[in-house]
Amino acid sequence: MTRREVTCTAPVNIAVVKYWGKRDSKLILPTNSSLSATLSQDQLHSKTTICTDPSFAKDRLWLNGIEEDISSNSRLVNCFAETRRLRQEVENKLKEEGKAVEALSNQRVHVCSENNFPTAAGLASSASGYACLVYTLAQLFELPLSTTELSKIARLGSGSACRSLFGGFVAWEMGTASDGSDSGAVQVAPQSHWPEIEALICVVSDAKKGVSSTSGMQTTVETSPLLQERLRVVPGRMKAMSEAILKRDFSAFAELTMKDSNQFHAVCLDTYPPIFYLNDVSRAIIRIISEYNSGPEGIKAAYTFDAGPNAVIYAPRQNIPEIIQLIAHYFPSSDASEYFKDPYHVLEEPLGQKKPVVENVVPIFPVGSVKQILHTPVGDGPRILSAEESLLESSGMPKRIKSLL
Amino acid sequence: MTRREVTCTAPVNIAVVKYWGKRDSKLILPTNSSLSATLSQDQLHSKTTICTDPSFAKDRLWLNGIEEDISSNSRLVNCFAETRRLRQEVENKLKEEGKAVEALSNQRVHVCSENNFPTAAGLASSASGYACLVYTLAQLFELPLSTTELSKIARLGSGSACRSLFGGFVAWEMGTASDGSDSGAVQVAPQSHWPEIEALICVVSDAKKGVSSTSGMQTTVETSPLLQERLRVVPGRMKAMSEAILKRDFSAFAELTMKDSNQFHAVCLDTYPPIFYLNDVSRAIIRIISEYNSGPEGIKAAYTFDAGPNAVIYAPRQNIPEIIQLIAHYFPSSDASEYFKDPYHVLEEPLGQKKPVVENVVPIFPVGSVKQILHTPVGDGPRILSAEESLLESSGMPKRIKSLL
Repeated sequence: MTRREVTCTAPVNIAVVKYWGKRDSKLILPTNSSLSATLSQDQLHSKTTICTDPSFAKDRLWLNGIEEDISSNSRLVNCFAETRRLRQEVENKLKEEGKAVEALSNQRVHVCSENNFPTAAGLASSASGYACLVYTLAQLFELPLSTTELSKIARLGSGSACRSLFGGFVAWEMGTASDGSDSGAVQVAPQSHWPEIEALICVVSDAKKGVSSTSGMQTTVETSPLLQERLRVVPGRMKAMSEAILKRDFSAFAELTMKDSNQFHAVCLDTYPPIFYLNDVSRAIIRIISEYNSGPEGIKAAYTFDAGPNAVIYAPRQNIPEIIQLIAHYFPSSDASEYFKDPYHVLEEPLGQKKPVVENVVPIFPVGSVKQILHTPVGDGPRILSAEESLLESSGMPKRIKSLL
Repeated sequence: MTRREVTCTAPVNIAVVKYWGKRDSKLILPTNSSLSATLSQDQLHSKTTICTDPSFAKDRLWLNGIEEDISSNSRLVNCFAETRRLRQEVENKLKEEGKAVEALSNQRVHVCSENNFPTAAGLASSASGYACLVYTLAQLFELPLSTTELSKIARLGSGSACRSLFGGFVAWEMGTASDGSDSGAVQVAPQSHWPEIEALICVVSDAKKGVSSTSGMQTTVETSPLLQERLRVVPGRMKAMSEAILKRDFSAFAELTMKDSNQFHAVCLDTYPPIFYLNDVSRAIIRIISEYNSGPEGIKAAYTFDAGPNAVIYAPRQNIPEIIQLIAHYFPSSDASEYFKDPYHVLEEPLGQKKPVVENVVPIFPVGSVKQILHTPVGDGPRILSAEESLLESSGMPKRIKSLL
């Protein structure tokens, strides 16, 4: 019996048909299907190393260098329990066949996970984090599962995590079974199908943290009359969105994306007491993109907002430099190199030196209203890394531990 | 034949079940019924003098000292045409009966109208303005109409104007007839029924003017899927709101008022492109009132927002001083005497000298974020004033004309 260790990364996904509302909060079964694009792990990812060793006394988990208590987090407990149960099945089967098998299901694990994007960026890390945890456990335990089956386990950690198991464009089909057996992710189209689509994440400052999505969506289900109509609307949108993606019809994709973001925030506002995630900067970005789209060339960009004020703008690659200049015009920065790092070298002119394509849509905002713009194409699904990429030392302890002093 | 002249005032009303959407934009027939409280004319009113004289060459109208072209405004044209048609019927009947009658229906009129609240306050003046115009014309022409019948003419000018024909609590029943004959206002309860209810209007600064309600509601009807659910929800709310008023149940009244304001703004957000009227100050007021209402005493105030960022807060009289102090705490002013004039002398302590009842709900906003607070009880319907109150000189020209230089 030897030590086993696997290190993987998993991507962030940003929904274009939003998930908001659970019909079963323990199994994390949604009230509607949703659809997202997976963003490139070259820019944004969670990275997880999991190590199992007969000498480990208990399960331990470090998240961004801080040890977390697994047992008090039922979602973590569920992900571990389900993958271990399946590992036990593998072991039983191998034993029955008279084959050699390591009893990994009974060993304790050390888990070390990090996000390469700052928490301050306000990006939800639970989707990439749980996707990475479950994907890495599946590698470690050599589980014979399809990606869709694996996505159903990730779903137990965080609903939207199931969509981070695939690259490209991904649907989470809500399913109807009460045990959640048909509620998982499927790939609508791989990254290679429509590589022109890229995303800009505009990180927006906000004075006040909004309510968590877990408690927010629960309150919406309990109090919003309009959610009932949304649940009737979404199936048609899922179909239309899949078709738009398969036909590479950006105009249809963008209009549906913007309408669905608007509707998600509308049901938040119809919640009692109302939930607000959009602030004045978010509203201004919506106005700027709407104005940008009203020109003779038609729809050139799509905004979408999750449970926070940050905008994600999807657009074909050719429009990306123009949109970066547009955002930088209305939301200036004091340090251009921190504001936009240009990982793909798309800017031909320095930020703010160019007349914006649409002028006087909103007033110029104070410096720092948008803190940063991140640029990322649509990307692939989870990746298995080499042993050198491990986050754990040979002792089984994290290489980096954040001092709490 | 002599000159005739009448001067009247009409009140502002603020809906607690909102009107948003027309099924007939020429006759101004709504997609749902609505309900409002009428605010006291002692604080807020439109005042109109109408004079008819055989010597007048044409219809003329001055609004806040500036002459307007009546013929280019179909809503004004419709109000004049309908009241003159009814005057003609009166004249025909009197003639048939062999009685003396002045042929007023063929005479030209001079109309002079003023609002006693500044346009900068962002309060819709069309409701009180059209209510006053139609009420004054009805007095001038001695039309034998019930207030509900009169409200249907005011509706042709501006939908919500029909509700300003009554004092107290007023429903606009949407009706079903295609000619609008059953779409008018009825009084749910007079001012005297529930005199404890008062309103605070928080005038909020906004950098950008939102879309007009006329074009906004049209776009909502055309593009918002969620509006369909709202139209199913409103009848139940109308019934529940009337009952809450008749039972003087402030908690039920307030909860419905807040939910309906939220839902109106939710369907605006579900419109494509989305319509925003609430800004960060409006959101903060909602948070403050929600927090204020979450204490052991239960619901003590209700916010509501029309097509703009201004908050109207309805509350029982006993809570009013506390709420003024609360708003003044989070939204300080540089000039307390301009900020809140205290017409009813309710403040026992100077503004901002008292610890607010709920603390640290939102950050303290920059000075001027709320420009002014107006305090007004629920009030009566249109009033006929004495001849000394006329806005016209004996020449038939306005006493005050705004110089356009």
